[in-house]
Amino acid sequence: MKKYMIANIPGDGIGKEVVPAATKVLEAISDIHGGIRFDFNEFPWSCEYYVEHGKMMPEDGLEILKNYHAIFLGAVGNIQLVPDHISLWGLLIKFRREFEQVINYRPAKVLPGVKSKIVNPKDFDLIVVRENSEGEYSEVGGRIFRGEDEIAIQNSIFSRRGTERVMRFAFELADKRKKHVTSATKSNGIFHSMPFWDEVFKDVSRDYSGIETDSQHIDALAAFFVTNPERFDVIVASNLFGDVLSDLGAAIMGSVGVAPAANINVNGEYPSMFEPVHGSAPDIIGKNIANPIGQIWTAKLMLDHFGEEELGSLLLDVIEKTTNKGILTPDIGGKHTTSEVTEEIIQGL
Amino acid sequence: MKKYMIANIPGDGIGKEVVPAATKVLEAISDIHGGIRFDFNEFPWSCEYYVEHGKMMPEDGLEILKNYHAIFLGAVGNIQLVPDHISLWGLLIKFRREFEQVINYRPAKVLPGVKSKIVNPKDFDLIVVRENSEGEYSEVGGRIFRGEDEIAIQNSIFSRRGTERVMRFAFELADKRKKHVTSATKSNGIFHSMPFWDEVFKDVSRDYSGIETDSQHIDALAAFFVTNPERFDVIVASNLFGDVLSDLGAAIMGSVGVAPAANINVNGEYPSMFEPVHGSAPDIIGKNIANPIGQIWTAKLMLDHFGEEELGSLLLDVIEKTTNKGILTPDIGGKHTTSEVTEEIIQGL
Ligand SMILES: CC(C)[C@H](C(=O)O)[C@@H](O)C(=O)O
Ligand SMILES: CC(C)[C@H](C(=O)O)[C@@H](O)C(=O)O
Repeated sequence: MKKYMIANIPGDGIGKEVVPAATKVLEAISDIHGGIRFDFNEFPWSCEYYVEHGKMMPEDGLEILKNYHAIFLGAVGNIQLVPDHISLWGLLIKFRREFEQVINYRPAKVLPGVKSKIVNPKDFDLIVVRENSEGEYSEVGGRIFRGEDEIAIQNSIFSRRGTERVMRFAFELADKRKKHVTSATKSNGIFHSMPFWDEVFKDVSRDYSGIETDSQHIDALAAFFVTNPERFDVIVASNLFGDVLSDLGAAIMGSVGVAPAANINVNGEYPSMFEPVHGSAPDIIGKNIANPIGQIWTAKLMLDHFGEEELGSLLLDVIEKTTNKGILTPDIGGKHTTSEVTEEIIQGL
Repeated sequence: MKKYMIANIPGDGIGKEVVPAATKVLEAISDIHGGIRFDFNEFPWSCEYYVEHGKMMPEDGLEILKNYHAIFLGAVGNIQLVPDHISLWGLLIKFRREFEQVINYRPAKVLPGVKSKIVNPKDFDLIVVRENSEGEYSEVGGRIFRGEDEIAIQNSIFSRRGTERVMRFAFELADKRKKHVTSATKSNGIFHSMPFWDEVFKDVSRDYSGIETDSQHIDALAAFFVTNPERFDVIVASNLFGDVLSDLGAAIMGSVGVAPAANINVNGEYPSMFEPVHGSAPDIIGKNIANPIGQIWTAKLMLDHFGEEELGSLLLDVIEKTTNKGILTPDIGGKHTTSEVTEEIIQGL
């Protein structure tokens, strides 16, 4: 019997609706398929927690989480209570960095029965591999002067180590797929970091002669997502570019509510974190209409990460059967509730 | 008789095909409608020029251009000859900065007869107002260490002056349209510059009580372009975010080949510059299939800028009649050549 300790952090907004849903699904999997058990512990760290305690989690939060095999997170952010940069840097982004979850891995393809939002979704089946620990997301910088003359400075920091690492991950992944890697760049406009990015991409690609490569500026790349999605297999992108592309990919899938993501610690020293692409969606809280599929598909990525690929495949199969049957929440054109979709998936197992 | 001196810079790739096409259209306008004349002078500044002269334009290039009412530019970039950051910073971006073209203004809507690439293009009719002189596009930064330890640092610089200026432009524009401004932010991930951006947006919006505002993170915003385009009227964005959104908008319009843009010097001290959203498109050079509409629609923005709004409207009318008739280049689903589309527009005038 394999046992996995999982730290559930529903966080804010619909995170509190979809994490319990996906947890039920995981429990059903362990009930049905004997060899695996999950020990879930829930932590209330969130913007509400901040209001009460003046911080997003307790001082020893990271210490506590180190003992878990994985973090299963919903969504973070509630600008009514806490400015976004405070809440995110105090929780989600902190985990990514402190636990060296240097890769963010985001598959995107159109599920059966869900109408893609683009006219030509044929072969829209790709993975965005996003650098997850540095780049444009940095606390380095600040402000000078006051009043009219004020200036804000933001530093992006790209290391060769981090850039190579995410690119190698992308190439290895492409090797198991259609053997094609596209690099998201902007070396025509971003003067220092992106020409550096291109150089490293060229260097790394030399080690993978069997993989075809392409390099596209982020503006053109975003446009091609809509006009020529068949161009892509694996896309490797910086922190910010990966963020934008994966949301765009989710939209093309029909709704950001279906898109999964994994934050991977590559050396196994700290827990990896599993949280879907969507945010806390304050506009639909409490209506039982949040799409649970993003979180449930994210649970599949967690199973894969544990080496339970068979169960992972089974789960994605059941998700696809569910959407194919038309059991859909409103964001993807259906009339079903969060609970109904979840129940259907559990039955399907 | 009003006379406008125009500096034509076809630049690279299909720029050399669409600038002559749009120039013919402007000449036809002046032939037919007596009161206006254009004096075009062409400059060969481009990547080929670089190969010959070791720079993108002569030392006194800026001096020369100062005498013109406007710059009419095609596209810049040919990585076979010159790295992108060298060619762009030596020409296009240099003009934007040295001539204080601080606003980049990019309308996007689906033309009649052109199939949008998204399923739900209803009311896709918006304008991206992009900060065009600072932000993420900066030469500040560099590299340290060597080999494995190498680090690249890129500074984004946001001034209150520049940020306010672009926002005010957006609010003024929205006042003449649907009275709605969306701010493109990423204050949950970009720690210094984007919370600053949000603050300035809040401050500026106080002066425009008649305008509704909204603020969306760039990832969600890009997704909404595809899933909920009806949310938008005017969008104000930083240099990089505006770049990505306008290309994405162009893709939704059917092809990046139809999208127009204007780089505006707001105080009239230096020439403004008119160049479409698309790039030099090396893959289709010499085939006479480049879509001239982006460049011709850009000529319309130039007419508007000269105060010739009537002629500007006439030109857009004729463009719309042409697409509506099905006279389209291959990128938007037609079989016509660059010359045929151009000819049809000239006839239409
Ligand atoms: C060519 C490039 C530097 C430019 C930009 O990024 O500004 C282009 O994409 C544009 O949008 O005009
Ligand atoms: C909430 C936010 C900080 C986060 C990010 O930008 O990384 C989110 O958009 C994501 O993609 O996980």
